[in-house]
Amino acid sequence: MRERVRYIIESKRFQQAIIAVILINSAALGVETSADAMAHYGDLLHLIDRVSLAVFVVELAARLYVQRGRFLRDPWNVFDSIVVAVSLMPAAGGLTVLRSLRVLRALRLVSAVPSLRRVVSALLTAVPGVASIAALLGLVLYVAAVMGTRMYGHVAPDYFGNLQTSLFTLFQIMTGDGWSDITRQVMTVYPSAWIFFVCFVLICTFVVVNLFIAVVVSAMDEEEVEVSERILAELAELREEVRSLREPAGAP
Amino acid sequence: MRERVRYIIESKRFQQAIIAVILINSAALGVETSADAMAHYGDLLHLIDRVSLAVFVVELAARLYVQRGRFLRDPWNVFDSIVVAVSLMPAAGGLTVLRSLRVLRALRLVSAVPSLRRVVSALLTAVPGVASIAALLGLVLYVAAVMGTRMYGHVAPDYFGNLQTSLFTLFQIMTGDGWSDITRQVMTVYPSAWIFFVCFVLICTFVVVNLFIAVVVSAMDEEEVEVSERILAELAELREEVRSLREPAGAP
Amino acid sequence: MRERVRYIIESKRFQQAIIAVILINSAALGVETSADAMAHYGDLLHLIDRVSLAVFVVELAARLYVQRGRFLRDPWNVFDSIVVAVSLMPAAGGLTVLRSLRVLRALRLVSAVPSLRRVVSALLTAVPGVASIAALLGLVLYVAAVMGTRMYGHVAPDYFGNLQTSLFTLFQIMTGDGWSDITRQVMTVYPSAWIFFVCFVLICTFVVVNLFIAVVVSAMDEEEVEVSERILAELAELREEVRSLREPAGAP
Amino acid sequence: MRERVRYIIESKRFQQAIIAVILINSAALGVETSADAMAHYGDLLHLIDRVSLAVFVVELAARLYVQRGRFLRDPWNVFDSIVVAVSLMPAAGGLTVLRSLRVLRALRLVSAVPSLRRVVSALLTAVPGVASIAALLGLVLYVAAVMGTRMYGHVAPDYFGNLQTSLFTLFQIMTGDGWSDITRQVMTVYPSAWIFFVCFVLICTFVVVNLFIAVVVSAMDEEEVEVSERILAELAELREEVRSLREPAGAP
Repeated sequence: MRERVRYIIESKRFQQAIIAVILINSAALGVETSADAMAHYGDLLHLIDRVSLAVFVVELAARLYVQRGRFLRDPWNVFDSIVVAVSLMPAAGGLTVLRSLRVLRALRLVSAVPSLRRVVSALLTAVPGVASIAALLGLVLYVAAVMGTRMYGHVAPDYFGNLQTSLFTLFQIMTGDGWSDITRQVMTVYPSAWIFFVCFVLICTFVVVNLFIAVVVSAMDEEEVEVSERILAELAELREEVRSLREPAGAP
Repeated sequence: MRERVRYIIESKRFQQAIIAVILINSAALGVETSADAMAHYGDLLHLIDRVSLAVFVVELAARLYVQRGRFLRDPWNVFDSIVVAVSLMPAAGGLTVLRSLRVLRALRLVSAVPSLRRVVSALLTAVPGVASIAALLGLVLYVAAVMGTRMYGHVAPDYFGNLQTSLFTLFQIMTGDGWSDITRQVMTVYPSAWIFFVCFVLICTFVVVNLFIAVVVSAMDEEEVEVSERILAELAELREEVRSLREPAGAP
Repeated sequence: MRERVRYIIESKRFQQAIIAVILINSAALGVETSADAMAHYGDLLHLIDRVSLAVFVVELAARLYVQRGRFLRDPWNVFDSIVVAVSLMPAAGGLTVLRSLRVLRALRLVSAVPSLRRVVSALLTAVPGVASIAALLGLVLYVAAVMGTRMYGHVAPDYFGNLQTSLFTLFQIMTGDGWSDITRQVMTVYPSAWIFFVCFVLICTFVVVNLFIAVVVSAMDEEEVEVSERILAELAELREEVRSLREPAGAP
Repeated sequence: MRERVRYIIESKRFQQAIIAVILINSAALGVETSADAMAHYGDLLHLIDRVSLAVFVVELAARLYVQRGRFLRDPWNVFDSIVVAVSLMPAAGGLTVLRSLRVLRALRLVSAVPSLRRVVSALLTAVPGVASIAALLGLVLYVAAVMGTRMYGHVAPDYFGNLQTSLFTLFQIMTGDGWSDITRQVMTVYPSAWIFFVCFVLICTFVVVNLFIAVVVSAMDEEEVEVSERILAELAELREEVRSLREPAGAP
């Protein structure tokens, strides 16, 4: 029985069907955002939503039945379970956010399409290599936010009123969006405030650039290592050959 | 007869003449945008336009006559044909857009100048390597647009009024242009909206950076492979030499 | 006695305790920015601050006692000493800036956590390689600022009123933030001002891109050199082997 | 006589003196922008300017006397001559621009300081490699400007009123500064205008990214080639050694 279920859920046709359900469901969730479409086809859209959800639940149950203990070891299964679980929560009353999270189901496409799955896996392997630089960036952001709140909190409360606001403002400055407007506003009171902001922009840019470079270099490195590995293997074989050359020549 | 036509259209002088016609035509189309110039030299500009178009049609016909079946196999021929065909469509009435598309003929310069042709070909080879990451980016954009429309549609209808508007707004945020203004506007109603926007900015930046890196690495990889190929070929020859060394030494 | 102190301050447990003190102190300094929290827990927060500072002073004194003459040779010791010294300065009266600098103590985390220390060291090694390009960028900025002040000082005094303002404005343009607004404002008086600004943007972008590339290439280069070093070493050994092959063959 | 002049102008001390004059002159030109400083030290500043200019003219004359025919072959000499010539032009009347160009003399620092000279030479070697992509970008900009002027000229005359304005606007959009504001303004009349702008942003970004990549790859390539050259040279020598191994073995 279990083998038969495994055969079905691992068949190409079944997986294509699931992808189709995800696509239809995603499209329906998009159409749902139109009040006009809801007025005319609301029932149909709700039906698609419920049927899709049922299909996902059944598929996950089948996978759990087949894989048993190994189910939770595959992070993609965990990802799919969370996405489906979010949709099963009772969207009582005005919890718009929770109802909006239903569209995260479209992300199941990532776990269902192998090429997307590979891309995301590749992206995630880049994360540990840059964790230290990201932590450094976070530290710089925190220190600057505390300083900004203390120094400019009373001058520009919209931007530096409290620690959370300062963190957001400095994140904005880090992305380079409208940083000069904020600086000029603060400079009307503290003319030397440009020192703080220019230093922050320079330090952030420097760290962010190095963060990018770390990702590039680690990506290149793998290529590099692979290529040099082949050359070194070839050299080792050549050396072996040269060595074996000596023995028959020295033996007689 | 066909050989003679082939000889003409493949001659350097003919191709330079075509490039000259494209340049004159492009310049004329630029001058046409000035109402002042149109009032004085309108007839001349129209004449240039018609003559150029005639030259292009004749050239394409000659190429089709020479190459016959192979004509459509060369994507540059298809490109040239489309560009010329757009100009032949009857620009009836107020179809400003269609009349504006006539300037696309300037892009024929790309197919006519070999160095530009090479550059564009090189650019297009980078496309398949990043298709998966681009698809992922599109998925993220779609999911965020549906969520944005549902959550903030009634708060900021200019930015999240419907799915199409949300897609445009999120594309804008992805390019980093004025994202903080939009976020601050939404935050006046939902103070925790920064979570959504900061996450979106971080995810997009991360994916876009990896998209760029994928292009760089694939470009470098070709160089790398070429170089290592030469080294490996050299090693293989050396090995052959070492092997051949053994035979004459062992033969006697 | 000195050996015992060394044993203590170099123990893992002691270093983890210092990291804990830094984290608690940093968090307290963050909470201090909230007027609300200060009203309720002001005394506690001040206490944490004083105790942390005392711990840092004692730790530095212990390190100085153990390392003696070598103390100042380690740049991280100098860094820690400056950060702590800033906090010891009498924050008399309204010197908000000096009191704000206390939060720089959070940066001691960098010197205390080995992985952050490595990252910052790596970042700093990139500096000398780009010093020349940075100097070039500074020169371009200075020349453009003098020209901007002379040409547009009377038109847009907010942006080009004096040399310092011009430098800030051109730094802003270099980061690409709102450069078109400034240019359009100047262009209302001098329609050809776009030449100056577009040239400045192009030159800066070109130099900055090359600055980034210099960092990437120097980072890659190290990897490259390491790999090629291994290949060359392998080749040298192989050659030695081939050479030694000749001697026993030629000796008899 | 000529040898003696050569000895002087090529001596380290003389070159350091020239650098000092450039620095003092540049600083004086910066101070000149302050009306306050001009009122107090105007005469001194003018004196510095005249003396510096005299020094530069004498230095160039000496170099011309020494190098004769080879003088114009060195592009740095040409650069220095132009910069000095600009300052010698009679700054009659209100030619503020020409008088502002005097500060370009500060750029003589580039030709006088060897490390800056190397950096600029390196930057310029990157130019030919990207000329084709830059030409492509220019073509895209031109085509888009003609289309923009024709389609949106009457809607947003500030941005697309004539070809020159459109070129500036599209250059601005290419740098990503405030592109969404322009697009939204046009979209109030033509709701489908986003197609034009989003396509333009995507194409430009794609081409610009590839332009950067071309520079990186060509920079890396040189490193790469150097390293692989060493490996290949080593391999060739090894092969020679293996070959020479055969001859003495086959000779007896």
